[in-house]
Amino acid sequence: MKNPFIERKIYYHHTDAGGVVYYATYLHLLEEARVEFLKENGLDMKALMDRGIVFPVVHVEADYKSPAKYGDCVRIFTKIEKIGSASIVFTQEIKRGEVLLVIAKTVWACTGTDLKVKRVPDDFRQALEKNNG
Amino acid sequence: MKNPFIERKIYYHHTDAGGVVYYATYLHLLEEARVEFLKENGLDMKALMDRGIVFPVVHVEADYKSPAKYGDCVRIFTKIEKIGSASIVFTQEIKRGEVLLVIAKTVWACTGTDLKVKRVPDDFRQALEKNNG
Amino acid sequence: MKNPFIERKIYYHHTDAGGVVYYATYLHLLEEARVEFLKENGLDMKALMDRGIVFPVVHVEADYKSPAKYGDCVRIFTKIEKIGSASIVFTQEIKRGEVLLVIAKTVWACTGTDLKVKRVPDDFRQALEKNNG
Amino acid sequence: MKNPFIERKIYYHHTDAGGVVYYATYLHLLEEARVEFLKENGLDMKALMDRGIVFPVVHVEADYKSPAKYGDCVRIFTKIEKIGSASIVFTQEIKRGEVLLVIAKTVWACTGTDLKVKRVPDDFRQALEKNNG
Repeated sequence: MKNPFIERKIYYHHTDAGGVVYYATYLHLLEEARVEFLKENGLDMKALMDRGIVFPVVHVEADYKSPAKYGDCVRIFTKIEKIGSASIVFTQEIKRGEVLLVIAKTVWACTGTDLKVKRVPDDFRQALEKNNG
Repeated sequence: MKNPFIERKIYYHHTDAGGVVYYATYLHLLEEARVEFLKENGLDMKALMDRGIVFPVVHVEADYKSPAKYGDCVRIFTKIEKIGSASIVFTQEIKRGEVLLVIAKTVWACTGTDLKVKRVPDDFRQALEKNNG
Repeated sequence: MKNPFIERKIYYHHTDAGGVVYYATYLHLLEEARVEFLKENGLDMKALMDRGIVFPVVHVEADYKSPAKYGDCVRIFTKIEKIGSASIVFTQEIKRGEVLLVIAKTVWACTGTDLKVKRVPDDFRQALEKNNG
Repeated sequence: MKNPFIERKIYYHHTDAGGVVYYATYLHLLEEARVEFLKENGLDMKALMDRGIVFPVVHVEADYKSPAKYGDCVRIFTKIEKIGSASIVFTQEIKRGEVLLVIAKTVWACTGTDLKVKRVPDDFRQALEKNNG
């Protein structure tokens, strides 16, 4: 599995009156990193959506170690911890240089657009396994 | 037409590193005020959406006179300036007490969920005219 | 301790292309509920900030049980689970009627505006304990 | 003056229940494009901020011609229309391929961090003029 990272710059719209990135807004960066991670591994979320398969977040947890500030460039690293029968578990890190800012874990359910649970499609699983190792 | 205002408090998520509400986020407050204004005049946007009628914003303009800050309570005032055959023009003001913070104008198109232009429904027009004067 | 809830309506700006509230945006509602919970218990976050005391989020976790949709009215319930020497743990629930949508836990550090750890002020602790039981 | 564009992909966090980018969220993309435009022309907003000079938005207007959707890649083009004594006027376009999605005009005031009006710094003006023509 390829484990690329994405780079993002912090703009005003990410920040709050504390002068740092708002705690919920890191989750935007995490979404972007998951989508790009999957794309690098051959999986296009838009194409899956067009097939009626979506992945709502059912759990998220984040530890905020150090804040990102306006003008910072950060990297968001993504790994898949587990592919279950109907769920996927991601672990992610946001770093500025070597400084760890946020550690996060996100769990996706696999569902139809009606939000009813579905098995993770075989080609999804295979794409990730093919790139693994 | 009834011209109610809504009151909203400013939280961290509205603000940016400048210590004031982010310029795009005032537009969230304006959306809330338009929806509540129409509801007070008997128009439920959700019910219209369920009938396949939506109102995408096709134009917005805003003058930022003075900033809203964390902890402020603001009032958002809404008026309908014009109901066209397939559009609606709103003028709105955001105030903190007597201090004018933002003046805005928003134009909605009336469309189907396919975003193709539709005439503003008669009951929409009538509801607003009935309350007018 | 008083355990009030706040009510919020879901607008377009809360939602995403899945037709439901975006996973990060529930955290905006959780912030609002914590601030109002503390205010009901006599604690004004703005006044604390003016004294140089802020409460950055150091941990958040959320289980998304069922989605909130455009036009929904939801209630956000807040409890304090623990007041540590330099941290506060909140547990919160978001419900639509009797339907549980989100369960969340948030941990605040207590810091100066320089983000260096501080003891939770005594009057903060006392206000919450006074209202307890 | 260099007139670069930035490219951005549309993620869930940009969209709303209409399936398209939320009208206020385009303004996030516009902010990013202005910052990168200025950086390409030798102007670092963060460095200016550290010198106590900030540029609050005092006016914005946008025409929404066609929506951006989940998964779209868009380009945001930025031009400076005018540099006044204490203000800067930007015109911007958001396009998907050759399709024009949004035209926008934004006016910045030049102020201190106290939001009191200041003259646009000479080096700011010179950097832009040096790159002009």
